[in-house]
Amino acid sequence: MAERIETDVVVVGAGLAGLGAAQALVAGGRDVVVVEARDRVGGRVVNRELEHGVVVEMGGQWIGPTQNRIQRLAADLGIDTFPTYNEGENLLRFGETQGRYKGTIPRINPFVLADIGQAQARFDNLARRVPLEAPWSASRAEQWDSQTFETWIQRNCRTSKGRDLLRLYSAAVFAAEPADYSLLHALFYTNSGGGVDRLAGVGDGAQQDRFVGGSQRVPLAMAAELGGRVRLAQPVRKVAIGAAGVTVLTDELEVAARAVIVAIPPTLAGRLAYEPALPSWRDQLTQAVPAGAVIKCNVVYETPFWREDGLTGQATGNEGPVKITFDNSPPSGARGVMLAFLEGAHARRASRMTPAERREAVLGSLTRYFGPPAATPLDFQELDWSAEEWTRGCYGAHFPTGVWTQYGPALREPVGPIHWAGTETATVWNGYMDGALQSGDRAAAEVLAALT
Amino acid sequence: MAERIETDVVVVGAGLAGLGAAQALVAGGRDVVVVEARDRVGGRVVNRELEHGVVVEMGGQWIGPTQNRIQRLAADLGIDTFPTYNEGENLLRFGETQGRYKGTIPRINPFVLADIGQAQARFDNLARRVPLEAPWSASRAEQWDSQTFETWIQRNCRTSKGRDLLRLYSAAVFAAEPADYSLLHALFYTNSGGGVDRLAGVGDGAQQDRFVGGSQRVPLAMAAELGGRVRLAQPVRKVAIGAAGVTVLTDELEVAARAVIVAIPPTLAGRLAYEPALPSWRDQLTQAVPAGAVIKCNVVYETPFWREDGLTGQATGNEGPVKITFDNSPPSGARGVMLAFLEGAHARRASRMTPAERREAVLGSLTRYFGPPAATPLDFQELDWSAEEWTRGCYGAHFPTGVWTQYGPALREPVGPIHWAGTETATVWNGYMDGALQSGDRAAAEVLAALT
Repeated sequence: MAERIETDVVVVGAGLAGLGAAQALVAGGRDVVVVEARDRVGGRVVNRELEHGVVVEMGGQWIGPTQNRIQRLAADLGIDTFPTYNEGENLLRFGETQGRYKGTIPRINPFVLADIGQAQARFDNLARRVPLEAPWSASRAEQWDSQTFETWIQRNCRTSKGRDLLRLYSAAVFAAEPADYSLLHALFYTNSGGGVDRLAGVGDGAQQDRFVGGSQRVPLAMAAELGGRVRLAQPVRKVAIGAAGVTVLTDELEVAARAVIVAIPPTLAGRLAYEPALPSWRDQLTQAVPAGAVIKCNVVYETPFWREDGLTGQATGNEGPVKITFDNSPPSGARGVMLAFLEGAHARRASRMTPAERREAVLGSLTRYFGPPAATPLDFQELDWSAEEWTRGCYGAHFPTGVWTQYGPALREPVGPIHWAGTETATVWNGYMDGALQSGDRAAAEVLAALT
Repeated sequence: MAERIETDVVVVGAGLAGLGAAQALVAGGRDVVVVEARDRVGGRVVNRELEHGVVVEMGGQWIGPTQNRIQRLAADLGIDTFPTYNEGENLLRFGETQGRYKGTIPRINPFVLADIGQAQARFDNLARRVPLEAPWSASRAEQWDSQTFETWIQRNCRTSKGRDLLRLYSAAVFAAEPADYSLLHALFYTNSGGGVDRLAGVGDGAQQDRFVGGSQRVPLAMAAELGGRVRLAQPVRKVAIGAAGVTVLTDELEVAARAVIVAIPPTLAGRLAYEPALPSWRDQLTQAVPAGAVIKCNVVYETPFWREDGLTGQATGNEGPVKITFDNSPPSGARGVMLAFLEGAHARRASRMTPAERREAVLGSLTRYFGPPAATPLDFQELDWSAEEWTRGCYGAHFPTGVWTQYGPALREPVGPIHWAGTETATVWNGYMDGALQSGDRAAAEVLAALT
């Protein structure tokens, strides 16, 4: 027999969005129960503890300027940040040729530099014209939504290296290929985060700072405050709407409430069983917004040996399979940790490899970037987010052509007592931890208004 | 307590694919159980009986040349066909201007005719170069998959009416906008059905013939032959893989088998709960292939009055909301039935209307095509396929940009004892009843080979 609980609001998902919504509801004087499929909180934010007290994040980890919501929260919770290691030179690799540069402007052929410069300026300009609350209402929304970002790159970049740099932007920021989503989505998402440099950068960018002890400390501390309201290991089997409100069923719980906030990625929200079935326009949205593909690898060495070589640890290359790296060493300096991303097409290919093949492929890339010492790590930690049953892809969902203009209004629109949260529903910092928290605030405000 | 059944193979879904697979397995000497969520068989093929013995189809209905699999089956089952009414002239409407023409070549501006002619020839030529077993292996697969069909139309058609004609092809054949899917998908699907004219045509085309008594007679007769093996009203709650095979759970049944054939659309297949969870490459495919949007309307009049006016009942118009019509009257002549399709963007908009608003919008279109008598039907029957919980869109899935090249190989690849059927997995007549049956044959053959 299921345990029956009566509450005001039930929240599905104990990621940052769900936990944030729950906190806001509690602050608003409401009873809340959060049901979470996993046996942990945090969703796409998860620490992994290694030897010697080294903590690495296997999911979302950075915090940057203008991410005010999470900054405020972390300060309230007493969780400190420290700067991502960023001293020295970066590496940029095209095929077999590798160069070093300082700052944001690579030391490459001036024709390529001019080309990527004009393309980025044009792209940022277009991005600023996308209304974050309603991308489908942009004056050229249909035109932008009927072509892929790849089509735009081919039309607006003249050099092959310039094109590759924009494709690297896509891998790093969307975890998807520019052919996977629409130009409108590329523009929306870029505007949501404040522009290309802000999204892609370390200093003054989205990768600027890290959390001492790992980013999962934030959701863990939120859950601790919520206490027994958070119920783990409770995959939702049904969301039933009745005259009296909503009942959320798990294998063990029957939670009756007046409203529900579904705070999980849109694909997973579409996979829940609803009674009665959701309207067509909402269901078709959830059919059409796949998650990106990322395998995140934290590779542990005795020391951050690249620093002695005058390198930041940030490398970018057009051939992969690792196209983006960062120095992810703990502030203690106890170990050197190199963070290597497999993203988009490379993640999809690598997800079919054995762990040994994947390790070899990743270490091969790291050795090409940083030399032979990279070949023999002490430890190799990886997480394929597409294989995670309760996430099914990272960083977030991307919107293929046609989806924003045809289904965009269904993204946040409540269906009766069902409200939608999750970073994919955010207007500012969509896809980021900050956006997740903002989306929880917004959904909680909707519910508080509806319940009074 | 659930009723426990042991069998050789369990089939999920009693559409044409599932029923065909079950028949092939029985013919191969295997025990089979088919579990179906609905309280009827046929999936996207369903009759509706009206007054005066008139039967209309609310889903798939036509049969055409080269659809040999369903032709043979219907003959075996003793189900006759008759030609779709096709005598007289067709209507073509651009904005406020409506013209009449006979055969397949509209009487329009010769510049437009030449334009659409060259574009169609070029498109058909490219389509023939897509290998049906492996669209991702086409020599220019990446190029074709990184742009939308809409992008191709804009580049390859010079006149706005020519572009609109290709967009009408998209509505009629894909139930989606050309911005919704990739050029590679457009080419694959067109080649799968034998070319633009074959797919879009009545005489010598996919709309050539109809089934006496309605197309659902085919799955109904198949189910009658399978008898007690088909279990209705059994939504699947879990597919569990163990050492001994597979167990499929519904609220009432526990079916243990050595293999399972999942014969439902890919989105719905992705929504089932699997234990253990599916591999990432399979799951991400099902996140990325949304179904088209169709609201099919059968509008019943005292007589097929358009025939007296020398019209076939086939009308096409660029403004909609009804862009495609057919004469769907019963062979008895007891009533006149006009078949009106809302497709793609128009279906999505109309799905938010009230039934009364939708009826008014459809009758408005029909009146513009066929005059005042169209405004006052005896009966108005509609079905929004995206609102159907156990289908969620029609005619079939479309593949957005990037999906065929990144995830195509996952479409039919078995996962342990799980095999995949459904018209979306067909190589020939993908998306059609014939493809559904072929996919069932193919999956059954896989299972028979695996079980020996």
